[in-house]
Amino acid sequence: MEQKRIKIKDLLVSKEYGSEVNVKGWVRTKRGNKQINFVALNDGSTINNIQIVVDVPSFNEDLLKKITTGAAISVNGKLIESAGSGQSVELEATEIEVLGVSDPEKYPLQPKKHSLEFLREKAHLRFRTNTFSAVFRIRHAMAFAVHEFFNKKGFFYMHTPLITGSDAEGAGEMFRVSTLDPKNPPLNEDGSINYKEDFFGKETNLTVSGQLEGELGAMALGEIYTFGPTFRAENSNTTRHLAEFWMIEPEMAFYDIVDNMDLAEEFLKYLIKYALDNCMTDLEFLSKRLQEEEKGKKADEQSMELIEKLRFVLEDDFVRLTYTEAIDILRNSKPNKNKKFQYVIDGWGADLQSEHERYLVEKKFKKPVILIDYPKEIKSFYMKQNDDGKTVAAMDILFPGIGEIVGGSQREEDYDKLTTRMKEMGVPAEDMDWYLDTRRFGTATHSGFGLGFERMMLFVTGMGNIRDVIPFPRTPKNAEF
Amino acid sequence: MEQKRIKIKDLLVSKEYGSEVNVKGWVRTKRGNKQINFVALNDGSTINNIQIVVDVPSFNEDLLKKITTGAAISVNGKLIESAGSGQSVELEATEIEVLGVSDPEKYPLQPKKHSLEFLREKAHLRFRTNTFSAVFRIRHAMAFAVHEFFNKKGFFYMHTPLITGSDAEGAGEMFRVSTLDPKNPPLNEDGSINYKEDFFGKETNLTVSGQLEGELGAMALGEIYTFGPTFRAENSNTTRHLAEFWMIEPEMAFYDIVDNMDLAEEFLKYLIKYALDNCMTDLEFLSKRLQEEEKGKKADEQSMELIEKLRFVLEDDFVRLTYTEAIDILRNSKPNKNKKFQYVIDGWGADLQSEHERYLVEKKFKKPVILIDYPKEIKSFYMKQNDDGKTVAAMDILFPGIGEIVGGSQREEDYDKLTTRMKEMGVPAEDMDWYLDTRRFGTATHSGFGLGFERMMLFVTGMGNIRDVIPFPRTPKNAEF
Repeated sequence: MEQKRIKIKDLLVSKEYGSEVNVKGWVRTKRGNKQINFVALNDGSTINNIQIVVDVPSFNEDLLKKITTGAAISVNGKLIESAGSGQSVELEATEIEVLGVSDPEKYPLQPKKHSLEFLREKAHLRFRTNTFSAVFRIRHAMAFAVHEFFNKKGFFYMHTPLITGSDAEGAGEMFRVSTLDPKNPPLNEDGSINYKEDFFGKETNLTVSGQLEGELGAMALGEIYTFGPTFRAENSNTTRHLAEFWMIEPEMAFYDIVDNMDLAEEFLKYLIKYALDNCMTDLEFLSKRLQEEEKGKKADEQSMELIEKLRFVLEDDFVRLTYTEAIDILRNSKPNKNKKFQYVIDGWGADLQSEHERYLVEKKFKKPVILIDYPKEIKSFYMKQNDDGKTVAAMDILFPGIGEIVGGSQREEDYDKLTTRMKEMGVPAEDMDWYLDTRRFGTATHSGFGLGFERMMLFVTGMGNIRDVIPFPRTPKNAEF
Repeated sequence: MEQKRIKIKDLLVSKEYGSEVNVKGWVRTKRGNKQINFVALNDGSTINNIQIVVDVPSFNEDLLKKITTGAAISVNGKLIESAGSGQSVELEATEIEVLGVSDPEKYPLQPKKHSLEFLREKAHLRFRTNTFSAVFRIRHAMAFAVHEFFNKKGFFYMHTPLITGSDAEGAGEMFRVSTLDPKNPPLNEDGSINYKEDFFGKETNLTVSGQLEGELGAMALGEIYTFGPTFRAENSNTTRHLAEFWMIEPEMAFYDIVDNMDLAEEFLKYLIKYALDNCMTDLEFLSKRLQEEEKGKKADEQSMELIEKLRFVLEDDFVRLTYTEAIDILRNSKPNKNKKFQYVIDGWGADLQSEHERYLVEKKFKKPVILIDYPKEIKSFYMKQNDDGKTVAAMDILFPGIGEIVGGSQREEDYDKLTTRMKEMGVPAEDMDWYLDTRRFGTATHSGFGLGFERMMLFVTGMGNIRDVIPFPRTPKNAEF
C-alpha cells in the first residue's frame, strides 16, 4: 500500500492509462458475479464514483465479503480506459485493504433512494449521499465565492460579536446566554434577576444581526462585510426558518441607495456565476433530482429547470421599482381584483406578503425585482428618511421561488433625524451611545444589506427545505448532533 | 461633486498627475498657515493618508474651520506630484464638502498617541487609529488566506453548529443558551429544570469546538475545515483568553499524524507568507510600534523584530520531537536544574507549562516546535492510542512568544478502543451514538487540528493582548457594543 493516494476527482480526469495509483473511499455499491466484481467507490471529492474492477478469483473471499455499502477501503490498482459508457476510466484492482467495515444489516444508508425527511434524522450520515454531498460541496463553493468577491473589491471581513449586550435591532426574540445557576439565580432586592453577577456582568443574548457593529467598521475602514452565524428564537417551524443561520452583511461608507443596489445585484450574480463555473457536475445532479421530484406536479406548478433558472438571473438587469409603484401594480392585478390573494391590497402602507412578492417576480416581471422606498412605518429605525417624509431608502431584493433574499438600506446619517426616529419607535438611545458616535463624529452617507446565506443556498441548489442546506439545522425542539 | 470617488490606496500609487479626482475620508490632521493648509485624509483602505493641499484664500473660512480631526470630508482636486518626501502624490483641492463634522472638544481620538487600554474602552472608534486599522486589515487578509489555502487544496468549508446539545469535548465551562423564563423556569417533579420546555427541548450550550461534527463531514466528504466562533465560559482575565474567539479546525479522512503535521506546518507558513506578500505596509507600521513599545525593555527581553520573526518561521522546517524527548531535554536543562522553572520537571507524565514550551522554542531550538505522542492521561478521549499503551498521537505546535498555537491529533478510529477510553474517562457514550457511527460504518484513519485565529493574529501583528486583535472582545464582565 505504498502508492500515493489520489483523489477520485483528479483520477477521473486522468489520462495516464496503465499507471499504478491508490484510492481510498467509501463503497457505494458492489455488483457482479463469481468472476468479476464492480465496486463504485466515492471519496467525497466529487459526486462521481470511480469504478473498481475486481478479478474475483485473485482475491481472498472473506475480504471481498467485507466490501459492502458504506465500508471504507483502500485500493491499489492500474488505471484503464473504461469500456462502459458514462465514465472514461476505471481502476483494475491489484491490492485491496478494508479499512472499516459497514454491517449491511445495520448501515442506515442503503443503495436506494431515501426520503429527505429520513435523511434529516440521519444528519450525521447524510453527507455520504449524492444529494447532500452535492449540496455541501456547493455550500463550500458559495462561501468561498463570498470571500473572493469582497476581497477582490477591497472590502475587509469583520468578525462582529455573537454574544451581545444590546437588543438594538429589535429584530425578534433572542436567545439568552448565561452562566448563572438556572434554578437559583441571584436576585436583586426587587426580585429581578441580578445580572451583575452573570458572566458578562449584564444580560446578554445571541446576536440577531452584526449590522450596527458593521457600521462602526465601515465608518473607519470604508468597506467591510460580515459573514457569520445569526440567531432567531422564533417558534417558526417552516421550510424557510432556522434558529441558527449564516448571514452576510456588507456595510459601506460613501455608498448611497443606488450604489447599494448596484453592489447587491453584482454580488448575487457573482455567486451564481461562480456556481455555474465551478459546480456544474453537482448542479446537474441536483437539477435531475428536482425534475424527478416535481414529476407529479402540474405543469404550471413546476419550477424552472435549475441551471436554466440560474443562467436566467445572470442575463438580465434586475427590475427596480418603488414600493409605491409596486402597490399600484398589485392593486390593479388580477389576483387582487379576484380576491385570490389571501391578503388583498387595498391601500398604500400595507406590508407585502410572500404572495405579493411572488406575483411581482414570477408573474409580472419574470425576473428578480429590487423594491425600494418603503413606508417608514414598516421598516427599521436606522434607515435613511426620504425627503417625502413618508418613506425610507430601504431595498428588498425578491427572487423567484424564494421571495426576499436580500434586505438593506441607506442608513440615516443625520444625528437629529436618527435620534428623533429612535424616540418615536421606542429604541433606547441611552444604551446606544457607541452607535450614535458614528453620527456625532465624521458622519457620512453609508449603506449596507444582509443576505441570508441559506436562502441563497435554496436558490442555487433547488432544495425546498432550509434544513437541507445547512449541515446541522437548529429548529424548535431540535438541536441534535 | 460629480467626480467618481477613488480609494486612497489606489490614488497613492497613481501616476496620472493633473487628473481630476474625488476622494472621501476622515481627517487625521490639519496644519498650515493663512495661505495654505495641509489636510491628512484617510479612508481606511490603507494606513497611508493622502495629503490635501488647500489654498486657504480660495475657500470659505467657515468651511475650513469645520475641517478638524475626525470630520468626514469629500474633496475634488487635481493630482500633483508631491514636493515633500515620503509620499509621491498630493491632491490640490478645488472643491471641498464637509460631510460630517467632529467637535474637537468632544472627539475622543486626538492626533496624539493613545494607550491601548484607553482605546479598548473606545472600541467602537479605535478602527480609526493607525494601529487598529492595520490590525484589522491584517485580520481580513489572514481570514482570506485561510479560505484560499483550503479551497486550493480541495477542502470543503463546513459550518458546524454553534448551539449544541452535547458537551462532548468536556473542554471547559460552557455558556447556557435558553429562552426559559429566567426567574420562574418550569420544573420537573424532582425540582430540576424541565428543559423539555426550552426552545430546543433540551439543555443547550454554546459550542467549545466543531471537531466532532467536523469528523462526520470528513468521513464523507474527505477533507473539510471549520472557521467559526467558539466559546469558553472560563473566568480567565488574561492577555491570552477570550470568552468568544474564532477557531479554524480542519479534519481529514485518510490522514495519519505525519500527514497532519505536514498540513499544519504548510498551513501556518502559508498564512505568514500571505501576510508578508500582502500586508507589508501595515506590518512595517506595527513593527515600528512594537520597537517603540519595547524601547524600555532590557535587550534580552525584547522580542525579535516583527518582519524578521515572520520570515524566520518561513525559512526552516519546524522541529519535530516526542513528548518523551522533550521531557528529557527539559529535565536536563539549566533552568530545571537551577529550579528557575516555577514547575520543576521531575518525571514523565507532567503536563508542560508555558515556561517549558517557551524554553524549548525560544532557548533550545530557536524555531517552532511540533511536540507529539503525549501521555494519554493529559489528552482527550478521541485521540489515537499508540501501540506503547501509554501515549496518544497528539500534536501541539509551539510558537515563539505565543506557546501553543495549534493542537491536534490523529483520531482513534477503532470503535472498541474508543468506547473503552470513553468509559475510562467518563464520557457519556449514550449521548454520542451519532459520533460513534463514524467508527461503526466505514471507519478509517483520520486526523485534524485546531488553530486559534486570535493566537495567530497575535503572532502576525506583534500585539501583546488578545483583546486588541478581535474587533469586539468578550471577556469576564465585558460585553460592550
